[in-house]
Amino acid sequence: MANNKTGIWIIGGFGGVAATAAVGLAALAKHAMPTTGLVSELEPFRHLPFDAWGDFVVGGHEIRQSSLIDSAMQMVTESRAIPLELVENNRAQLDAWSSNFRPGILTHSGRAIESIATTGFPIVAKSARDAIDILSRDLVAFAAENQLKRIVVVNLASTEPPASAELSQMNWQQLSQCLDDPKFCLPPSTVYAIAAMESGHAYVNFTPSVGSNLDALRELAIVKKVCHVGRDGKTGETFLKSVLAPAFASRNLEIMSWVGHNIFGNRDGVVLDDPINKATKVKSKDSLLSQMLGYQPQTHTSIEYIQSLGDWKTAWDHIHFRGFLGTPMTMQFTWQGCDSILAAPLLLDLVRFASLAADKQVTGELSFLASFFKSPQGTTENSFGKQFQTLIDWANAFSE
Amino acid sequence: MANNKTGIWIIGGFGGVAATAAVGLAALAKHAMPTTGLVSELEPFRHLPFDAWGDFVVGGHEIRQSSLIDSAMQMVTESRAIPLELVENNRAQLDAWSSNFRPGILTHSGRAIESIATTGFPIVAKSARDAIDILSRDLVAFAAENQLKRIVVVNLASTEPPASAELSQMNWQQLSQCLDDPKFCLPPSTVYAIAAMESGHAYVNFTPSVGSNLDALRELAIVKKVCHVGRDGKTGETFLKSVLAPAFASRNLEIMSWVGHNIFGNRDGVVLDDPINKATKVKSKDSLLSQMLGYQPQTHTSIEYIQSLGDWKTAWDHIHFRGFLGTPMTMQFTWQGCDSILAAPLLLDLVRFASLAADKQVTGELSFLASFFKSPQGTTENSFGKQFQTLIDWANAFSE
Amino acid sequence: MANNKTGIWIIGGFGGVAATAAVGLAALAKHAMPTTGLVSELEPFRHLPFDAWGDFVVGGHEIRQSSLIDSAMQMVTESRAIPLELVENNRAQLDAWSSNFRPGILTHSGRAIESIATTGFPIVAKSARDAIDILSRDLVAFAAENQLKRIVVVNLASTEPPASAELSQMNWQQLSQCLDDPKFCLPPSTVYAIAAMESGHAYVNFTPSVGSNLDALRELAIVKKVCHVGRDGKTGETFLKSVLAPAFASRNLEIMSWVGHNIFGNRDGVVLDDPINKATKVKSKDSLLSQMLGYQPQTHTSIEYIQSLGDWKTAWDHIHFRGFLGTPMTMQFTWQGCDSILAAPLLLDLVRFASLAADKQVTGELSFLASFFKSPQGTTENSFGKQFQTLIDWANAFSE
Amino acid sequence: MANNKTGIWIIGGFGGVAATAAVGLAALAKHAMPTTGLVSELEPFRHLPFDAWGDFVVGGHEIRQSSLIDSAMQMVTESRAIPLELVENNRAQLDAWSSNFRPGILTHSGRAIESIATTGFPIVAKSARDAIDILSRDLVAFAAENQLKRIVVVNLASTEPPASAELSQMNWQQLSQCLDDPKFCLPPSTVYAIAAMESGHAYVNFTPSVGSNLDALRELAIVKKVCHVGRDGKTGETFLKSVLAPAFASRNLEIMSWVGHNIFGNRDGVVLDDPINKATKVKSKDSLLSQMLGYQPQTHTSIEYIQSLGDWKTAWDHIHFRGFLGTPMTMQFTWQGCDSILAAPLLLDLVRFASLAADKQVTGELSFLASFFKSPQGTTENSFGKQFQTLIDWANAFSE
Repeated sequence: MANNKTGIWIIGGFGGVAATAAVGLAALAKHAMPTTGLVSELEPFRHLPFDAWGDFVVGGHEIRQSSLIDSAMQMVTESRAIPLELVENNRAQLDAWSSNFRPGILTHSGRAIESIATTGFPIVAKSARDAIDILSRDLVAFAAENQLKRIVVVNLASTEPPASAELSQMNWQQLSQCLDDPKFCLPPSTVYAIAAMESGHAYVNFTPSVGSNLDALRELAIVKKVCHVGRDGKTGETFLKSVLAPAFASRNLEIMSWVGHNIFGNRDGVVLDDPINKATKVKSKDSLLSQMLGYQPQTHTSIEYIQSLGDWKTAWDHIHFRGFLGTPMTMQFTWQGCDSILAAPLLLDLVRFASLAADKQVTGELSFLASFFKSPQGTTENSFGKQFQTLIDWANAFSE
Repeated sequence: MANNKTGIWIIGGFGGVAATAAVGLAALAKHAMPTTGLVSELEPFRHLPFDAWGDFVVGGHEIRQSSLIDSAMQMVTESRAIPLELVENNRAQLDAWSSNFRPGILTHSGRAIESIATTGFPIVAKSARDAIDILSRDLVAFAAENQLKRIVVVNLASTEPPASAELSQMNWQQLSQCLDDPKFCLPPSTVYAIAAMESGHAYVNFTPSVGSNLDALRELAIVKKVCHVGRDGKTGETFLKSVLAPAFASRNLEIMSWVGHNIFGNRDGVVLDDPINKATKVKSKDSLLSQMLGYQPQTHTSIEYIQSLGDWKTAWDHIHFRGFLGTPMTMQFTWQGCDSILAAPLLLDLVRFASLAADKQVTGELSFLASFFKSPQGTTENSFGKQFQTLIDWANAFSE
Repeated sequence: MANNKTGIWIIGGFGGVAATAAVGLAALAKHAMPTTGLVSELEPFRHLPFDAWGDFVVGGHEIRQSSLIDSAMQMVTESRAIPLELVENNRAQLDAWSSNFRPGILTHSGRAIESIATTGFPIVAKSARDAIDILSRDLVAFAAENQLKRIVVVNLASTEPPASAELSQMNWQQLSQCLDDPKFCLPPSTVYAIAAMESGHAYVNFTPSVGSNLDALRELAIVKKVCHVGRDGKTGETFLKSVLAPAFASRNLEIMSWVGHNIFGNRDGVVLDDPINKATKVKSKDSLLSQMLGYQPQTHTSIEYIQSLGDWKTAWDHIHFRGFLGTPMTMQFTWQGCDSILAAPLLLDLVRFASLAADKQVTGELSFLASFFKSPQGTTENSFGKQFQTLIDWANAFSE
Repeated sequence: MANNKTGIWIIGGFGGVAATAAVGLAALAKHAMPTTGLVSELEPFRHLPFDAWGDFVVGGHEIRQSSLIDSAMQMVTESRAIPLELVENNRAQLDAWSSNFRPGILTHSGRAIESIATTGFPIVAKSARDAIDILSRDLVAFAAENQLKRIVVVNLASTEPPASAELSQMNWQQLSQCLDDPKFCLPPSTVYAIAAMESGHAYVNFTPSVGSNLDALRELAIVKKVCHVGRDGKTGETFLKSVLAPAFASRNLEIMSWVGHNIFGNRDGVVLDDPINKATKVKSKDSLLSQMLGYQPQTHTSIEYIQSLGDWKTAWDHIHFRGFLGTPMTMQFTWQGCDSILAAPLLLDLVRFASLAADKQVTGELSFLASFFKSPQGTTENSFGKQFQTLIDWANAFSE
């Protein structure tokens, strides 16, 4: 029997986004769920030979002893975002997938992520090289046990502290020579990316952590003939920024200041409450305006952990702009979106597109997927409209 | 000496939008004003041989005895939207332009518009044909006195009641035969459009009134070799709808309901407070969603006259949408825009584009200007992004 | 064994508010629910000898064949406002209470309410008198079967069309003489109120319908030595108006305009979508400002039925006010409240206060309960702070 | 001729609030301005024998070389909050008052305030005692030159860094012994307060700086038989908190979290942009909820300097609360208030009330003025309704 299944291997796989994706995937496989929220199901992409929803197997690495069911139930009870029956009806599949999970790594995650790990649970590696080897063996085992044609490794782990500047100046040879040094400070997201690439698998970074966004890893991807893409799923406030800013620019309205305040209460919020981790995130949310506008307005972006909100990320944006004759005017919006509900379908879309790209032997950064990311790799274009047109153009070219 | 000036002839020319445009035009001509808010000044249009700001002369038809200065001063004192000095510094030019104005027509405007006219001021015509002839003579005189190479006639008059259905089924021959009948009910906006076209001038309809949006007038424009375009300047809430709705669609988020409440207190508001006139406007604001989404969500749009707001149109929109797993989420926005400040530069842009099109002997509906209108003539495309791309494409083709 | 139970007899008892109150009452009786939202549980009222939560029995009149469970399940699935387990855990009690329900009357309810009734289900009476007699027998039977010390009749039925002006000019003798006339147009809310009073029971009107707000019924209440109170539970936007308007007045800030737009999608919304019924409601929401401010600002209040919102009533209020030196400023708020969740505890509070008043032989209008109502009977005071102080004063006097 | 004028001596007197108050006072003295925004003009206070608006003379201390006119013109041009004519019409009076100003002190103001001072302009004192003597002499001279019956000293200077904890444990004897020590770190607001009290004048602290809020100064006030009051004028977001929180409490709705984001762009904002100074302010805005609610919800309050907003302070508050059956609900508000326009009339009210209290030989903290302050001295009551009732009670007792 041919291997025709695709593995989705999720780093941080017992979090809210992963659990929501898993619940949805289980329901989609049974044709028991509308395709709302899934970009790959839109008209312009109907002709693409994507993996069917029933063709996926889920597994992953985690640093917390938990399960897809536990995390899904938090979405039911704490966030009131998923109906109880939906989880109940897919319990068996979620349990089966949970059994594919393996302990992840914690080294150089920073104190905030360390504080949420289950004590004694994460693997302890002697060096980055040692960690890569352990993680790679998990991927090999996952593929073998489930007769997979391929794996797409997806990073959903909590945001790491910013990576060191010197890391971004290394080429692969330089970086690879440090891997055996126990003191070499390589962010976990990059360790996982190397493990994925060396095992010949696609890598998708849905978080603001550095992941594969290094010249060294761009090199490695080419050498290993794998594709990769990132960073930071564009789900809510930043999505709207990338929609609205080009519109203001098209009307020659001058944005004087753009203030965005985000509040939410999920596990990511606990980690972002640490200023070191928050710095990575705010940077990712705040830098795109000047590219789209052609000048830098005053901006302020905050993210605060407010426990009562659970997974409901609420953003208030205040856009102060100047029109004809210099007259100041204001647009404000509030966005009340459930973070995991918004992110989960994009994750599934990215897996489908990356798997399709791999089928076609596309290697390197998948810059045509820019519309999914706050800080898209392989392009400087941030306008959502233009990014989405690029995706459609890619799909149209595919069919030709 | 060659005639190289372009006339801007404004129907409803002593209103807030016209006065704001005139103040700005006077300042632009002296290079005493940044070009904020002017689309024609954006990078993609820099190479187009537009009329210079100093090349315009303003005149118009009005039914109220007033002046550009009076109306501009309302923007200063009641709406606090224009600095006093700016009006003071351009008083001489505004007065000169005010002297170009002539009395307009009132027949079939409806009771709300009649109530704001100055008694005894509007011209009284025996029939539509008679009115057309009088109005045309005003245009001819304006062109002669100011040595104009052309006139762009712009409709800024308050919104009329909806036109009769039978009117839209007439061809030009049928319609023209009715013009001598004193009882023939032809909306003023169409009377003005005929006068403009028969005089060989371009016609721009910035209001939701029917204007040239009739098969009969499309015919007439071709015959007379003039260009025309409309309807209803897209300045605030509808502009945002045409920006946001395509973005929701691109993410496969299902909009369940879209509620928009608009409040404002200028003269247009007084007229729209009459339910007959309001019907024309709400229709123009509400119908574009199904085109952009591919299905019809529940919608509700209201426009209410709230005197204290003056020219500040405040909109609250509540967008209720469903995401992955059927989870309902919400986006809300408030838009606090000064109506005349937003509309005036678009009006100047339209005049520039229409004048350029006339230079190039383009005739008929200028559908490449769709991004400026709520109900664009000559196209069914409502997505702002796509409309704006069409404008850029037109500009790029122009240069070739 | 002494009769020490109190009956809660709900007109419109299978609606969302009644079902939510019943679910909560069942849980409170088992001490399985915090007392959040219940005014009678606040510190200033702790010393009052209220009926215990386990001392109530629920029944009611309905025009729809349904049940408390069915309506509670709508709150679970459509509105996502009550957790499934809470309904499951109280199923037996809700079923027992549902069996106490009897068919209600429909005459003179208006077309909107008629359209939601189950065909053939409501009782058909020959006259108002006949209806009163039938309804009274239901109350007698309910009291006897459940050994009740008293009944509090609560009107939760959908809003009726406005009552005729002549009705409010009748005294009881005049009104009572019309009751046998089959053509006499007496609103159902008043028919129920008469049945309650003639049976010696307290009457609480939680809706804007006229109910007992007639001189004739004020007379009847005194004669029958019963207490009554109304109208229109103050749950959301109007509650905030009665909190904010006095604060603006205390700062001598002049409110120029107050616009309130309400959207929601429950059964009340279907009925209010009929302009006749809506008129009753908007009047109740809109009239209190001038009493609190001492002048009448421009106001506009709308209520629109937006199906997707279910029981979540969302209000946007725009308050435009003038401060020192005449400077205009703005406050806006949005209120996203679940209607039944807000109303249900107030209903239980009103029953407790009315039952306590009845224990103390208080008769006539219970004006000390004004803080619970949009249009409080027996007082013109609308400031929430002053109304609430009156309630505290009553409680303090009680203890003396 | 009797001295019947009252001096208003403003610390930070060339700021926006002071200039706005001066413009308004000049207009009120000429009966050329409605009394909107002035609490002392409300009905409950009509019978009080306040100083007439024409009975005031303005002077003050400043660390910037500027004038009332310059600051008022910023309100005209940058903030568009005061009409140009209003300033023009009162230019002579404003200039006369500006000539009463004297250089203030800068020692221990912190780096942020130092950075906005005019170099070489502030007075340099050898010690706090030396500063107090110099400042006192300015007050004596002001009173003599203008034949004043009294002075009310008002602190409007930018917010200082928090005062040291040990200061609040000193009595007057201990504190006074340190005054000659050149190294003794006494905040300027307290130095001014001592100068005012020792000169026999009333002291009002409109800022969050410590001012007279020390046991030592409470002692001094009693000894010197002067009255004083503070701290931090309650103008916008906190005013609304103190109105809304008690209303939520009265309905037994549990506030889970209250997030408040404030943005504004005036000089105060520049100073608050320094984290040291901001700490003083946020504390003042954030601490009142637990007193009003009886428990501590999660709170987050931010203040950010956004230059384009000028004097327009915009606040967004997100209130997440739990109702019956534990259901979470949300209220959000935005407040767009002009800071100086809101503060200036309260300042004038406070001067009037303090002057009246001084007339009646009231000494010590004027706790009946709590409704004007975010952190009222002499009381722990923060509910605006109760604070305002205390003011009315005081006024009623006055008349008896």
